[in-house]
Amino acid sequence: MKTVEVSLTPPLIDQDALAGRITVVVDILRATSCMVTGLANGVKEMVPFVDKDECFKMREKGYKIAGERGGKKIKGFDLGNSPYDYLDDSLKGVGVAITTTNGTVAIQRSLNSEEVVIGAFLNISALSKYLLSAKKNIHIACAGWRGKVNLEDTLFAGDLISRLVPEYTPVGDSALIAQLALQSCESSLHREILFSDHAKRLGKEYTRDIELCTTIDKYPVIPIYESGYLILT
Amino acid sequence: MKTVEVSLTPPLIDQDALAGRITVVVDILRATSCMVTGLANGVKEMVPFVDKDECFKMREKGYKIAGERGGKKIKGFDLGNSPYDYLDDSLKGVGVAITTTNGTVAIQRSLNSEEVVIGAFLNISALSKYLLSAKKNIHIACAGWRGKVNLEDTLFAGDLISRLVPEYTPVGDSALIAQLALQSCESSLHREILFSDHAKRLGKEYTRDIELCTTIDKYPVIPIYESGYLILT
Repeated sequence: MKTVEVSLTPPLIDQDALAGRITVVVDILRATSCMVTGLANGVKEMVPFVDKDECFKMREKGYKIAGERGGKKIKGFDLGNSPYDYLDDSLKGVGVAITTTNGTVAIQRSLNSEEVVIGAFLNISALSKYLLSAKKNIHIACAGWRGKVNLEDTLFAGDLISRLVPEYTPVGDSALIAQLALQSCESSLHREILFSDHAKRLGKEYTRDIELCTTIDKYPVIPIYESGYLILT
Repeated sequence: MKTVEVSLTPPLIDQDALAGRITVVVDILRATSCMVTGLANGVKEMVPFVDKDECFKMREKGYKIAGERGGKKIKGFDLGNSPYDYLDDSLKGVGVAITTTNGTVAIQRSLNSEEVVIGAFLNISALSKYLLSAKKNIHIACAGWRGKVNLEDTLFAGDLISRLVPEYTPVGDSALIAQLALQSCESSLHREILFSDHAKRLGKEYTRDIELCTTIDKYPVIPIYESGYLILT
């Protein structure tokens, strides 16, 4: 029986346990929701960086550059961290270099896995089908917030696990906690996430972002990380 | 309005946020359950140490020494980490020096708080009454397991918060996650904890320990940490 485990925040990722696993990186508000939205809407490829200066270098190679720090678009960047930024037709066929506070860090810390894929509520059913057919041990890496645990990524982990059971066995207390938390608010996910720290930080002007990021199955695509690039499978 | 926050494991404790708070240290399986049981049954005082060699030094001063590593009693120690070890009449009026894998570490990392108290299901109602009358901001420090999150301490945090609301406001996603997780299994707490990593590690021979450690309100006492010693308030 294959297993599914969860790290609730990047510092809790056990590097020694990544080999042979598929890691699902999730940063619901908003990095991985942006990645799914961008690639589903025709962005050619996305290149995640931890350092914003690396993004500026990519601009010289013809990339658009996207990113935020503390939730705000970085000065001089083309795009911020709103999935709505990725609905512009001018991005079709273009590459985007992206850096965010938590999401790109979670990708970086997951690279010892056999495969890294990008998860969001926007692609959760397509992703669970992909994982069910892969039949490999799975690790869900929640991006959290600056090394802390967050609500929205934890609830995503619980939701994804519920779609993988019984074919996969949840292993570890973090997986149990995510499942139990999800069970309490499955029918009111969007409303619950509005109470999260991150929703409070973003404020009311971002309500439509949160609504989009908690929409289930809007984009049935699987972004995968290959040699530094996020592309669709 | 006073607040209640949660750290799901000691590395996630924000040292800068401890000042002025009461920290509730919890290690359900089994350190804080032992502390509550021991002090309720007449142990004079308990002295927590991170280092087991410090315990041996305390023996020379007339203390009994208690502790485990990886769940097993340390060689040469008088007591292990089972609450049943503390029901012996010979411990009445005696001091105990104690070291455990996670619980004593959580105490150590909470010492910048204004006050440190010990929580367990065994004393949860008495503790919540104490905290409600204290009217100070509260931090619940889950001991977890070797720097990871665990189920039983998270569920305790959720349960304690549910007893402090609405007088206290839960703040932060870890508090929300703990509350949601608890809501899903409030009526089957003991059974749920039997599925935890720690219960699996302990194995079937420790079922009666887990039963005792998940008993609500067996000992209505409040152990408090004062100048290196745990005593009853």
